[in-house]
Amino acid sequence: MSELLDRTIARVRAPDEEVARRTAASLDAKTKPPGSLGRLEELAIRLAAIRGEPPAGPLHAAVVVAAADHGVAAQGVSAYPSEVTGQMLAAFANGGAAVSVLARKAGARLVVVDAGVAGTATGTGSEVGDDVRSAVVGGVRGTADITGGPAMDRSTATALLARGIELADELARDGIGVVAVGDMGIANTTSASALCAALLPAEPAAVCGRGTGVDDAGLARKVDAVRRGLAANGLGDGVVDARTALAAVGGLEIAFLAGVILGCAAGRVPVLLDGFVTGSAALVAAGLAPQTPGSLIAATRSPEPGHDPVLRRLGLEPLLDLGLRLGEGSGATLALPLLGAAVAILTDMSTFEEAGVTSV
Amino acid sequence: MSELLDRTIARVRAPDEEVARRTAASLDAKTKPPGSLGRLEELAIRLAAIRGEPPAGPLHAAVVVAAADHGVAAQGVSAYPSEVTGQMLAAFANGGAAVSVLARKAGARLVVVDAGVAGTATGTGSEVGDDVRSAVVGGVRGTADITGGPAMDRSTATALLARGIELADELARDGIGVVAVGDMGIANTTSASALCAALLPAEPAAVCGRGTGVDDAGLARKVDAVRRGLAANGLGDGVVDARTALAAVGGLEIAFLAGVILGCAAGRVPVLLDGFVTGSAALVAAGLAPQTPGSLIAATRSPEPGHDPVLRRLGLEPLLDLGLRLGEGSGATLALPLLGAAVAILTDMSTFEEAGVTSV
Repeated sequence: MSELLDRTIARVRAPDEEVARRTAASLDAKTKPPGSLGRLEELAIRLAAIRGEPPAGPLHAAVVVAAADHGVAAQGVSAYPSEVTGQMLAAFANGGAAVSVLARKAGARLVVVDAGVAGTATGTGSEVGDDVRSAVVGGVRGTADITGGPAMDRSTATALLARGIELADELARDGIGVVAVGDMGIANTTSASALCAALLPAEPAAVCGRGTGVDDAGLARKVDAVRRGLAANGLGDGVVDARTALAAVGGLEIAFLAGVILGCAAGRVPVLLDGFVTGSAALVAAGLAPQTPGSLIAATRSPEPGHDPVLRRLGLEPLLDLGLRLGEGSGATLALPLLGAAVAILTDMSTFEEAGVTSV
Repeated sequence: MSELLDRTIARVRAPDEEVARRTAASLDAKTKPPGSLGRLEELAIRLAAIRGEPPAGPLHAAVVVAAADHGVAAQGVSAYPSEVTGQMLAAFANGGAAVSVLARKAGARLVVVDAGVAGTATGTGSEVGDDVRSAVVGGVRGTADITGGPAMDRSTATALLARGIELADELARDGIGVVAVGDMGIANTTSASALCAALLPAEPAAVCGRGTGVDDAGLARKVDAVRRGLAANGLGDGVVDARTALAAVGGLEIAFLAGVILGCAAGRVPVLLDGFVTGSAALVAAGLAPQTPGSLIAATRSPEPGHDPVLRRLGLEPLLDLGLRLGEGSGATLALPLLGAAVAILTDMSTFEEAGVTSV
């Protein structure tokens, strides 16, 4: 058990309704017909309510991308071999990956985290490069294959949640005002599907998709792996608590990201979710602290069939629907300028009175 | 007739299919599963094909907002009085309006154009401020009420189209690589509805909406005004050419923006459309030069019921669906970062080979 985790869970509060009302009123005084900026206004209100106060200026953004390997990759559930996880971790740090490019473009700080990538490092630190942080706990570099038993020990899951919280706390101390989360891990949509199947709950076939692009046979293997993973872990018949499901069929990066999400929610820092995998991490966080979804913003709608039920459970409607299925936080990062615009509307637009425009 | 207009119409070409193919191939070599960035990849391909070459670096953006008054406002079709058009023109220039804030945030140059705003100026120049350009032709400051006859002379429509083309040509010479267009004009959704009813063609009731927020009675007056406007101008029974419809029931800012759109299309500069009113300007431009839609990108889906049929006719699918109904180019400006991201993916992302990542 982690004292930090319990303390953090206890700190997660619902958005401030009074701040939401005040922010809505201030938007109505701006030189535009009431509500005419649609979801941009809702976003400004939500950001203010999550923070507990309207932003006074631009929010500094960080993109946290966590990577880890998955034992279930051995079941042939991905179009790519596991070695790609570590290669992409290096690519994130080297600046040429999609999320690196998009984070730079958005003026956001990119934090790349090794949450347990196989083969790229020895010892406790990551050897991928100075720009990659290690959150590896107990030397665990990759989950066990869920079709044979639990993905990780419960203590590993707890430690990774705590590591994620620590990063969230550090970012908040650094003045980061919004955190976009992303994931990398060959076979991690299988892990996310298994988590959703256990936590929603849902039929494996209803929450398994093609991930980065498996064919029909690969998809069938994926559904089968999820089914067997649930059975091997005694899940799938009845209610299961989030930490049990996480340890049983989750991923190391999913555990870490669930911690980041919890830490941000506790610290009143809005979290921008990416696609299906970060959605599954949010589902875990919401299982641990039920008020968590109030601090979340969904960036994109993923083509993964499991994403919609997750979003419905979290009560979120994505800002973008661009058919993104890359992960890495690419969708969350792509939505950052919308958050920046929402804040600017709030801080920089004139009122009818200031502008001398006739109101109605 | 305008020699410039005819010459520009003759220059409008379809996007370059060969460039599209080459750009798609270069995207497939980047470190991501093929197509996994969804519509962001489509956008990059489209931008390259419109330009006739892939961008080598960031595209400089301009936001062109044109304003004008509408005689049909006398029919009680808007929630706001006509004086607001001129007040907003000043607000754009003063930096506190939504589009001013969003353009600044997007790093785009804002060009505010007085295409015929009543009461704010005498002489030929605009007196709103140095940052507002005048495109007023023949001292026409506002259209005539369409329910009594034509909105403007055919020569006025032609001259405004030419003025728009001149601005597009100037921006291209200045190195502007993408133009977002926006509109302001109390009652201009009525004019846009009448144009759509004439050009699609469509029933007035099917293409009239609440604009900036009229009530049921206002909406009924709007449908009636469109119906009477079409009848008074002998439109509505059969095919009508775009310039005839524009002069009969269009707006001065719509004519100007149709010129900007044509000029950009001729100069292979991608145009980012805003909502319903700029959509109606694009419909006019497409009527004059049928290849125009190939150079357009739809930024947002408007709640106006006439917008969807216009988008279908233009063959466009919006990037954003955020319930925006402000106009001013706010939606087009909000989508500029997506274009910037699409270009960055193309210019800055590593290939699998460069990054040493295993391809499949």
